[in-house]
Amino acid sequence: MDFSHGDVDAFLPLPGSYEAFEAGYKLGGRQAYTEYRGQAPIRKELADKLAAFTGAPIDAEKEIILTPGTQGALFLAMGALVGAGDKVAIVEPDYFANRKLVEFFDGQLCPVPMDYMKTENAAGLDLDRLEAVFKQGVTLFLFSNPNNPTGAVYSYDEIVKIAALAKEYGVTLLVDELYSRQIFDGRRYTHLRAQKEIPENLVTIIGPSKTESLSGYRLGVAFGSADIITRMEKLQAIVSLRCAGYCQAVFKAWFQEPEGFMEERIRAHQAIRDDLVEIFRQTKGVEVRPSDGGSYLFVKLPQLEVPLGDFVKIVRELAAVTVTPGTEFGPQFTDCFRINFSQDHEAAVAAVKRLLAVMERYRKEEG
Amino acid sequence: MDFSHGDVDAFLPLPGSYEAFEAGYKLGGRQAYTEYRGQAPIRKELADKLAAFTGAPIDAEKEIILTPGTQGALFLAMGALVGAGDKVAIVEPDYFANRKLVEFFDGQLCPVPMDYMKTENAAGLDLDRLEAVFKQGVTLFLFSNPNNPTGAVYSYDEIVKIAALAKEYGVTLLVDELYSRQIFDGRRYTHLRAQKEIPENLVTIIGPSKTESLSGYRLGVAFGSADIITRMEKLQAIVSLRCAGYCQAVFKAWFQEPEGFMEERIRAHQAIRDDLVEIFRQTKGVEVRPSDGGSYLFVKLPQLEVPLGDFVKIVRELAAVTVTPGTEFGPQFTDCFRINFSQDHEAAVAAVKRLLAVMERYRKEEG
Repeated sequence: MDFSHGDVDAFLPLPGSYEAFEAGYKLGGRQAYTEYRGQAPIRKELADKLAAFTGAPIDAEKEIILTPGTQGALFLAMGALVGAGDKVAIVEPDYFANRKLVEFFDGQLCPVPMDYMKTENAAGLDLDRLEAVFKQGVTLFLFSNPNNPTGAVYSYDEIVKIAALAKEYGVTLLVDELYSRQIFDGRRYTHLRAQKEIPENLVTIIGPSKTESLSGYRLGVAFGSADIITRMEKLQAIVSLRCAGYCQAVFKAWFQEPEGFMEERIRAHQAIRDDLVEIFRQTKGVEVRPSDGGSYLFVKLPQLEVPLGDFVKIVRELAAVTVTPGTEFGPQFTDCFRINFSQDHEAAVAAVKRLLAVMERYRKEEG
Repeated sequence: MDFSHGDVDAFLPLPGSYEAFEAGYKLGGRQAYTEYRGQAPIRKELADKLAAFTGAPIDAEKEIILTPGTQGALFLAMGALVGAGDKVAIVEPDYFANRKLVEFFDGQLCPVPMDYMKTENAAGLDLDRLEAVFKQGVTLFLFSNPNNPTGAVYSYDEIVKIAALAKEYGVTLLVDELYSRQIFDGRRYTHLRAQKEIPENLVTIIGPSKTESLSGYRLGVAFGSADIITRMEKLQAIVSLRCAGYCQAVFKAWFQEPEGFMEERIRAHQAIRDDLVEIFRQTKGVEVRPSDGGSYLFVKLPQLEVPLGDFVKIVRELAAVTVTPGTEFGPQFTDCFRINFSQDHEAAVAAVKRLLAVMERYRKEEG
């Protein structure tokens, strides 16, 4: 069981996605060679869909770019926004590439803690700390919502406050909404870009690689401030030219799923989450916050006799289970691991049980 | 007529390529999620094919990475090899992204001229100048062979000398062989990596986007020194994760074309080249070196009454012909443009005639 990413054989690619690829291929050169920011008709269609989804308009000519996966969108945005020495605020814990990208572009990391475990109905971001680093000259704040790895969804109040602070201090916001279509328990999700008070420079990224299981095509989208999108396109021209032309056609199957499809997909993931959370919670010393959205659980272990890195290797060898160590999401998470539970339901339950059985052998005796 | 890139409707994608994609898609998760450097069995197959093609072995585990297009390979290699202030030698003229990538990674450009117009049976690289910049502390030399935009192929002597100099001065070589399968007139092509004396650090890049018309999938390959490939993979992890998984399967159709297919494709391109060169040469004041390989011609114009940038715009408007201005390939090429003649043969001839007719209106009178 590989919990490091979702299983597209358990949750199949969106209905109609392969057919959309085939139709794109048959269009020939028009589809193979597009503008670096993506084919105009596809950008138009997506701009309309994403405007409806997020609640604020998008100019298809100027404010959207198609990228090789959401990772591609993140890289281009960071390349366009981070210069040497720039102070960049990130959340701890958050997606591991955020930290690596700041380092790659020689920015200066300003971590802001999120007390996700002790918070309900909010992510638990330390907003005082956020304002403090904004005051200290942060130029960019990057965060994922739902949060990766915890699945915490930011509350309306948190989002409004982040937006207002960014506006006040002239900070650019980069909001990773990759999992925003997979929200559990009928919870409210707030798109920052649709709020009244937002900063001048704002980019949102999203893609169909997760809930929609289209990762094999490498599809992502960034939309927001026109001049940032333009800089991203210039960078795209030297990074990989464009999101693969034929693959761009697959975007047509997105946001027009068969009726009930997304609801069923969310229900199935929520059911897996519930079972796994239950198992973890029954285990002494293990703590987990049920994810509000997305397919991740960030699990806190009791004290073990071996360090986290060794434990992850042991679990892979003895239980045939791959998890992602917590330290990928912030150096302090030495007693956590992340799992992506977008897997076959029964197999996921069995794998977690195997993992916990192995864990018991390494549990530190209380003294 | 858009001469800025090839026409995949005139020269169709490789036979079997779409079927390879479909088979990859049907493999499901195994094909969607691969190692960042590419799926192991595909790397193995490609390593064997490319070793046979280039004449030297490739370790499929350590020495090869699949990338989103050759552009992706180039970006990752430059990101792995160029640090701030590093001196990087490039050729003038050469592919425009080479220059941009050096600038993006804050390297220092050391241009080396190529006297392609006055040279036959060689590219005409100024080897004395190359040695001089190597002596001045160049750490990386990047060049395309066949050269983009001129189609000049480096002679055996040139390649052997470049390799020897790089070895002597400890310079890393990055050789872009994108068009190396499309060589005209039965000319000899020398793969640098197969020579006896080569530098310790050497990466070769290639892909099926051009001659094979597979650009719509974004497929590229880099192979060479294991530690550079490892650094490229680490960068890939934050740039776009991987060459799209399903697209990777298309590599299987490469280097196993139906018998006679490549020969016919080369013959057809050579025939277009011949016709266009003939037309250009019949035009007073226009100079062109017939390409030894690849689908480009780099055309030198007589003196015009308008600057190059204006001329390119005028030609697009009045003749409906798009060409790439020479200044993209080096600041001194203010009287040149590049065309990609991988087009419908008759349409290309007609477009060049239209372009030249427009040119006549702007020719500067001799005085």
